[in-house]
Amino acid sequence: MAATSNLGFQFPANSSNVKKENGVTTWEALKLSLYSSCNTANSLKNKRRFSLVTTNSHSSPKKVDIVNGTKVNVIKVVEAPLSGSKLANESVANAALVTNLRGRFVEDRFVYRQIFAIRSYEIGPDKTATMETLMNFLQETALNHVTSSGIGGDGFGATREMSLRKLIWVVTRIQVQVQRYSKWGDEIEIDTWVDAAGKNGMRRDWIIRDHYTKEIITRATSTWVIMNRETRRLSKIPSEVKQELFPFYLNRIAVASEVTDCEKINKLTDETAERIRSGLAPRWNDMDANQHVNNVKYIGWILESVPIEVLEDFDMTSMTLEFRRECRKKNLLESITTPTTTMIGQSNNSINRKPDLQYTHMLRLQDDKLDVVRARTEWHFKQEQL
Amino acid sequence: MAATSNLGFQFPANSSNVKKENGVTTWEALKLSLYSSCNTANSLKNKRRFSLVTTNSHSSPKKVDIVNGTKVNVIKVVEAPLSGSKLANESVANAALVTNLRGRFVEDRFVYRQIFAIRSYEIGPDKTATMETLMNFLQETALNHVTSSGIGGDGFGATREMSLRKLIWVVTRIQVQVQRYSKWGDEIEIDTWVDAAGKNGMRRDWIIRDHYTKEIITRATSTWVIMNRETRRLSKIPSEVKQELFPFYLNRIAVASEVTDCEKINKLTDETAERIRSGLAPRWNDMDANQHVNNVKYIGWILESVPIEVLEDFDMTSMTLEFRRECRKKNLLESITTPTTTMIGQSNNSINRKPDLQYTHMLRLQDDKLDVVRARTEWHFKQEQL
Repeated sequence: MAATSNLGFQFPANSSNVKKENGVTTWEALKLSLYSSCNTANSLKNKRRFSLVTTNSHSSPKKVDIVNGTKVNVIKVVEAPLSGSKLANESVANAALVTNLRGRFVEDRFVYRQIFAIRSYEIGPDKTATMETLMNFLQETALNHVTSSGIGGDGFGATREMSLRKLIWVVTRIQVQVQRYSKWGDEIEIDTWVDAAGKNGMRRDWIIRDHYTKEIITRATSTWVIMNRETRRLSKIPSEVKQELFPFYLNRIAVASEVTDCEKINKLTDETAERIRSGLAPRWNDMDANQHVNNVKYIGWILESVPIEVLEDFDMTSMTLEFRRECRKKNLLESITTPTTTMIGQSNNSINRKPDLQYTHMLRLQDDKLDVVRARTEWHFKQEQL
Repeated sequence: MAATSNLGFQFPANSSNVKKENGVTTWEALKLSLYSSCNTANSLKNKRRFSLVTTNSHSSPKKVDIVNGTKVNVIKVVEAPLSGSKLANESVANAALVTNLRGRFVEDRFVYRQIFAIRSYEIGPDKTATMETLMNFLQETALNHVTSSGIGGDGFGATREMSLRKLIWVVTRIQVQVQRYSKWGDEIEIDTWVDAAGKNGMRRDWIIRDHYTKEIITRATSTWVIMNRETRRLSKIPSEVKQELFPFYLNRIAVASEVTDCEKINKLTDETAERIRSGLAPRWNDMDANQHVNNVKYIGWILESVPIEVLEDFDMTSMTLEFRRECRKKNLLESITTPTTTMIGQSNNSINRKPDLQYTHMLRLQDDKLDVVRARTEWHFKQEQL
């Protein structure tokens, strides 16, 4: 895998947005410097009786087929030949299984929905799903969305036209607002959809609901840009990729604009850091298929510099992560946390009242102090358990 | 939770099997000294339209009801009242969902089966499910088995009669033999069942198959004993608990006796250790609901002292874990690995040919060198990827 040996990302030399900071090239316009953990190549093996294929209408933006009065804009589900009712029953059962394990399109294929039961090993010490678990679920629905859409290429969420050009998705920012954490055994359903974000970005949003009551329990939004996996340069979105994505774009926001956290997260330094936890070493199983630290693992390290009393007695109700630089197995990390009074968003927070605690965090490489992730969190004192 | 403040386990004072080793009480007959991570209390919230209830025949061992020609020995599925076909359809869909997300009984309710799709965050750097993922799946099927059986109490896999007596399950040993690791997107099905293990133990076995081809890809077996969660003493299995369990006992083994690893795993010392990795610190999210390190997390630490070339170029085909002592957030750990020539089992190994590498491992507390887990692993050079 040639890409993995290329540690240094490069950015378009002619981009007016490029500037040097601390000896490292950054692309300010996207609030991104270096980062990736999406740069893996694997496509879902199709062992199922049902397969997803693309119709000819595919490359035409917003073109929609009408079948039985239902819009089926891009994809048809094709059944393998069956013989006998047993096979037919098996197929129905397998279709239900695939839907239940991987999700399905809803709302005229603009929204992808997957149901999860919170498993025994996905809960934390307080027996509710952890923020890591939620982030894993968000990643999973996003990838299944792309795979099921029929436009998936050979990468981790890349489209076919992206794969042809060796392009990969890179997440620059994600904001998660948690109204309530689910308990072991709860069933939740996650809706996800995408929209344009400026000229060269994509926004992906998620809503998590209680599957039975439909109560909204979490909202999340994220920004993605495209990078060449070999040159490590950021790229404009090629028109062929825009044509693939456009039929799926939905103008709907999960996080209301007045509570969207789009403010810069301040860099923490030795002077502004209240708590520093050093010597954090990535483990073998923190690595993704590209030998980079997986996104979600950063959360665990951020929590390492949060006071234990906060972890025990408070719920994290909001988290914004700004990804800035990749991290590899050989890197040692420092986790920094400082209390702050800057609330996420302009006024109200996710659960519509003032948070009890607010923190700014940073993960940085221990040797050269370059920042890997910046984060902002809000916390509420735990309600009494019934 | 009073139990969590009691760090030291105690054993029945009158047990002839109890002896002192290194200042710590051990129960040799069970190859167990101290350990627990099953000591949590949470029951599945029943929000579903379908609920599981126990019939009166329940407490009578092996008593089986015949319904429509099918044995339904302990439990009936009861539907909530429905009105109209929409609700009926919803119920059918929800039943399929619950089955697909949590599993169901097969083979006259002696075997519990759950299907998993390998998710994007459950794979390692080589894009196949990790040993941690497999162990998480095994735990999940075991807990869903107990919950669905109708005999579940308020604990992590404890039965009702156990909960009434403040008893919990403690795993002492587990052996996993991997024929082939599944890839991202693969669907696997896991069968699990239980049987008696001597007078005061329970054996739980698992078979993992490819869901479509039914090829057996993993076999696992484990031994469990009962402990009082407050006194930390090991306990005999009360007759009331035996009566609960007996109807489910199935005399079938997943791992053939000639390849079952029941030999003592030698203790490693500074003299016998080839590689020692010190300063391993549990993170907040390594803790379970009882503030103990979760079982599965030990695997990651064991791998920390395995040479990186082995992790990259070999597949772990067999692992035996012997749990000896609990670990908490404040403990620092040392991971020790030494090559060995003792093969798991007597002759052939899991994939029926000589392994390329064999290791003995130990995790010990850094301050007093007491062993937490001992392990034995076998590795095969990775086959070329197609």
